[in-house]
Amino acid sequence: MSPFDHPLLSGLLGDDEVAPYFLADAEIQQMLRFEQELALAEGALGVIPAEAAQAIAGELQAFVPNYELIRRATVRDGVVCVELIRQLREFLGSPLDRHVHFGATSQDLVDTGLLLRLRPILGLFDQRLAALELKLGGLAERFGGNQVMARTRMQDALPIAVGEKLQTWRAPLGRHRARLAQLSPRLFVLQFGGAAGTLDRLGDRGPQVAARLAAALELGVPERAWHSQRDGIVELAGWLSLVSGALGKIGADVALMAQNRFGDIELEGGGGSSAMPHKSNPIAAEILVALAHFNAGLTGGINGALIHEQERSGAAWTLEWLILPQMIMATGAALRTAQTLLGQILRIGRAP
Amino acid sequence: MSPFDHPLLSGLLGDDEVAPYFLADAEIQQMLRFEQELALAEGALGVIPAEAAQAIAGELQAFVPNYELIRRATVRDGVVCVELIRQLREFLGSPLDRHVHFGATSQDLVDTGLLLRLRPILGLFDQRLAALELKLGGLAERFGGNQVMARTRMQDALPIAVGEKLQTWRAPLGRHRARLAQLSPRLFVLQFGGAAGTLDRLGDRGPQVAARLAAALELGVPERAWHSQRDGIVELAGWLSLVSGALGKIGADVALMAQNRFGDIELEGGGGSSAMPHKSNPIAAEILVALAHFNAGLTGGINGALIHEQERSGAAWTLEWLILPQMIMATGAALRTAQTLLGQILRIGRAP
Amino acid sequence: MSPFDHPLLSGLLGDDEVAPYFLADAEIQQMLRFEQELALAEGALGVIPAEAAQAIAGELQAFVPNYELIRRATVRDGVVCVELIRQLREFLGSPLDRHVHFGATSQDLVDTGLLLRLRPILGLFDQRLAALELKLGGLAERFGGNQVMARTRMQDALPIAVGEKLQTWRAPLGRHRARLAQLSPRLFVLQFGGAAGTLDRLGDRGPQVAARLAAALELGVPERAWHSQRDGIVELAGWLSLVSGALGKIGADVALMAQNRFGDIELEGGGGSSAMPHKSNPIAAEILVALAHFNAGLTGGINGALIHEQERSGAAWTLEWLILPQMIMATGAALRTAQTLLGQILRIGRAP
Amino acid sequence: MSPFDHPLLSGLLGDDEVAPYFLADAEIQQMLRFEQELALAEGALGVIPAEAAQAIAGELQAFVPNYELIRRATVRDGVVCVELIRQLREFLGSPLDRHVHFGATSQDLVDTGLLLRLRPILGLFDQRLAALELKLGGLAERFGGNQVMARTRMQDALPIAVGEKLQTWRAPLGRHRARLAQLSPRLFVLQFGGAAGTLDRLGDRGPQVAARLAAALELGVPERAWHSQRDGIVELAGWLSLVSGALGKIGADVALMAQNRFGDIELEGGGGSSAMPHKSNPIAAEILVALAHFNAGLTGGINGALIHEQERSGAAWTLEWLILPQMIMATGAALRTAQTLLGQILRIGRAP
Repeated sequence: MSPFDHPLLSGLLGDDEVAPYFLADAEIQQMLRFEQELALAEGALGVIPAEAAQAIAGELQAFVPNYELIRRATVRDGVVCVELIRQLREFLGSPLDRHVHFGATSQDLVDTGLLLRLRPILGLFDQRLAALELKLGGLAERFGGNQVMARTRMQDALPIAVGEKLQTWRAPLGRHRARLAQLSPRLFVLQFGGAAGTLDRLGDRGPQVAARLAAALELGVPERAWHSQRDGIVELAGWLSLVSGALGKIGADVALMAQNRFGDIELEGGGGSSAMPHKSNPIAAEILVALAHFNAGLTGGINGALIHEQERSGAAWTLEWLILPQMIMATGAALRTAQTLLGQILRIGRAP
Repeated sequence: MSPFDHPLLSGLLGDDEVAPYFLADAEIQQMLRFEQELALAEGALGVIPAEAAQAIAGELQAFVPNYELIRRATVRDGVVCVELIRQLREFLGSPLDRHVHFGATSQDLVDTGLLLRLRPILGLFDQRLAALELKLGGLAERFGGNQVMARTRMQDALPIAVGEKLQTWRAPLGRHRARLAQLSPRLFVLQFGGAAGTLDRLGDRGPQVAARLAAALELGVPERAWHSQRDGIVELAGWLSLVSGALGKIGADVALMAQNRFGDIELEGGGGSSAMPHKSNPIAAEILVALAHFNAGLTGGINGALIHEQERSGAAWTLEWLILPQMIMATGAALRTAQTLLGQILRIGRAP
Repeated sequence: MSPFDHPLLSGLLGDDEVAPYFLADAEIQQMLRFEQELALAEGALGVIPAEAAQAIAGELQAFVPNYELIRRATVRDGVVCVELIRQLREFLGSPLDRHVHFGATSQDLVDTGLLLRLRPILGLFDQRLAALELKLGGLAERFGGNQVMARTRMQDALPIAVGEKLQTWRAPLGRHRARLAQLSPRLFVLQFGGAAGTLDRLGDRGPQVAARLAAALELGVPERAWHSQRDGIVELAGWLSLVSGALGKIGADVALMAQNRFGDIELEGGGGSSAMPHKSNPIAAEILVALAHFNAGLTGGINGALIHEQERSGAAWTLEWLILPQMIMATGAALRTAQTLLGQILRIGRAP
Repeated sequence: MSPFDHPLLSGLLGDDEVAPYFLADAEIQQMLRFEQELALAEGALGVIPAEAAQAIAGELQAFVPNYELIRRATVRDGVVCVELIRQLREFLGSPLDRHVHFGATSQDLVDTGLLLRLRPILGLFDQRLAALELKLGGLAERFGGNQVMARTRMQDALPIAVGEKLQTWRAPLGRHRARLAQLSPRLFVLQFGGAAGTLDRLGDRGPQVAARLAAALELGVPERAWHSQRDGIVELAGWLSLVSGALGKIGADVALMAQNRFGDIELEGGGGSSAMPHKSNPIAAEILVALAHFNAGLTGGINGALIHEQERSGAAWTLEWLILPQMIMATGAALRTAQTLLGQILRIGRAP
């Protein structure tokens, strides 16, 4: 369905390192991790019996959910967790069933589970950005002294050093890493609020449980649940588009530099054509442009999810599920493709 | 990856009738159908030997492409057909390899193949719209005489007949069917242009081959290839958003009518909550709102694909692949969900 | 504020023929025309006294609203008409004040007033499209036999006739005119529903008044008010983006053809640079690309206005006011700029 | 044209404190300030004669540009500065004309001039956010102990303290202020690069001039010109949408709480209706929702401006001019309207 995991297109548009985090297994696993740590935190603080907590944490390892039943129940419930928790309770049996998921709500699992998967993904993106900076630095060492025609408004302006051009490609990447470091503490905050976001069933021990659970999951402690405060998610989406946009600019530049009569850049291994086998198309460059426009367009939609009415909006939350995963995949694919493209560069500019 | 074919979410957000058209098999099959009919048309007109045409058409049935090789080659080529055609030629062997795909280019296969899959999908959507109109008509018969409070700017205005409300939901659906009938002849036009859109290898027999091929595939005959004229595709995308938007309005209305103190509508089988099992959430209504916002946002992106530079833009074309399939799936899911939602209605309004 | 009527930028980005329709005067004038024809229709059908109708129609001519009071009241009312009608009633005095605006609501005035201004604007756009078709036909006569390099995926493919390229630019324009003809009957339908869209105050004479009023304003007769059915408006927005997108494709092509080493096209009067006075920038071509992306992005927002909850959504309706006028201006500016750009063409391609 | 400075709508949708920064006068004034400080910096460093620098700085005060000529020339040049600088040179006469604008390009003026206007605007927005936090704090003191029904998925969940709800509205505002503080050093960086972004005419004194000019304008010193690196601008746009989105959530909540049968909130001075004078519509709340959707949609467009090809893209840059000013106005209007809305609150929730 999605080009990101399509049997024919995912080599071009997907990202094999990121895709596994979006498998149903990976999602379920992080939700179960939440339940496990929740039980342990509640056990340690006496909210549930300590032995029940240990038993839950132990038995959870062996739990295998029935996906087809979840799929069917989700049509009714609008979220996978209701049936997942029902199955889990059935699996644990009495009296553990009363103690598991105590005080939590579906959104706590889903949102926290998402964060636990986002963390390694964003770590990977940061590494990839660093690798691109390094690669661009290497290209600057090799070709920085060459000359290339600067073009403004699609017309020749005057020759500049290739190093200037490479710096223009590179500088935003460093800023994107700085942005990521700044947004991360706002994003990686435990989601834990219970039915109405107030941890009502935990009485005055709510904050303690939250703090302990957050520590166990290495997440920030929330002032209160952010069920209906989606600025962290949307800020991330904006960042993803900034990243793919910076790479799209590189793609656009390379595609223009690679035009036949320009010879500003020499690329290895351009793409073929079924009708003109002699052609050498700058596929990776074009893909960067496409992914940048794609992510740009999606920001329009996901910003709408900020208008998250009341204490939990099924409509606004579902909208995030429809948009965020593909923005992450597109950004991963763009980072991977940029690495490919820079690796294809045999020469930029000409000796002065 | 995509919620539309996700193992847990696709019951909620997918569409089992539409999804099969987006399987790689279905895509390949329609591309091969194009090659088959192309060979037959060219054989009949003497562009290639008639017996070669028959042989190609026959042997194609047995051809099984190697998906993994296509996936890998697509990274290089930016499109699946280059490797597909290479495999096909290898399969057919000499001398048929020279005659297959004669005069065509990758975009001819991909775009025409898309149309051949869109045709049954849009037929299905038209039927579903008709079914919704019927359903709304039935509801009007049962409840049209009841009264319901009209609300403007979120405040009570005055009571109106339920029939008025139902007519407001229904009228756009009829217009959407009329729009579909009008746009279809613009959309369902054979894509066939060869390398540069001019059918250069067919000499003066290009138009005849195009006409015969179009007739065989029951598509319109193009004045010239529409490789870089994407208004038919984008008009379709706009239509999809009009449809999901009309259903999103129904969803928003139902969710508001179903609020606890209003009692304007009674629904069967609302969604559960892991924390509050007593709740009855209007899941289907919320999903309609989410899908409407989702498609609305995507129109922003796909309209950008109109700026399709030169004779074929890899960037703009790839952008369509990233957006159009999910708009179709979202619309299919919305139509299916609307049918579900209307079927859940036990009562609207109250007897006057 | 807006580049479309900015003292410095509106020559570049505005449209002097379209802008007057968005003056407050023009808006008020069409709303008053609605009131005038409403009174006459109601007078003719005995809904209000015939002499009151004549008096209203006569006196309205002399009515000059107080804009500053309207501006202030609109903060409170969310719509200009409440205060406009209050002023109008005060101006007419007793007993005419009871008869004017009888049975109508603010949205009737605003939406119908918009249609009355859209009609000449869309007529103008249709003429401009026709003029562009003619101009492209003329260019084809002069340069159609020249050759130009076709480029696919930003790489040289093979030479084609300039006539092929011009046909690619022209064909969508004809389809846009056909689309406009098809959507117009759906769009140009009287808005008239009263408080809750049911013409409740007119009793069983509602349909007759609507028919007579529609005839007087040369608009279609609605089955019922389309207060919360916005598909006509959003379909128009989609059309506007199709038009500017087609022109953006021409702009992108021209900017690429005009690149220094290509010489595919020769333009008169390119734009200057404060730092490089020798440059000749393809300003009009770039503006077409910018306007196309601009309109494309706006479609994302205005499609969201389809989710128009209940009988009148202040939020969704206001969103239209924020978006539609600028889409119209952008389209007007694009049509004007395309005419300029085509007029700058001194040569396309080279003799074979 | 724009609702933000429309004679009838700008009270509702505009912002009288922000609008003046978008007057042509204000734009020109900041561009001239750039020229003045540039001359002084270049004079101090011996790039131009010191006395010429002083003379330019002095005479500039009296310079009055001819707007109509600029408007006309901008059609040709695509940017206002070419003609502005021409007029300025004519005004200064020989030999000052050679020394003014030395080494700079149009984009240096326009982008730096924009920053100089953005600085007080964003300062104002920060103050308004702080004022809203304070206001929400005050409401929490008065009504925080009241109870209100929490609603999830549009259905009653359980009663919560009003303080919880107010905290949900308030917390994002503090984060938005922190974001602004973090993005500001990335945004407020001098634009100064000359024709091709390399300060080619300044030889090795480029960095010194840039540093001195940046200091004079209280802007950051760029590593190199950011002519084609637009992440600072687009990050700002994302921030604007985060702000209006947070306010849109408040608006959506208030509109729902103010529904007739809920009585969760009591507002002063709701909006009227021309047909139902008794109604009290939550206009300010609706406007917040509309502005949030509006800005959300615009992010889709402006993120596309990241794909800023080559050393200066007329298309991508113009796209920013079309979008950014209105995002600023919409955010200003939303902040102003939120203040109004919170001020209208007479009561939230009920004593427990």
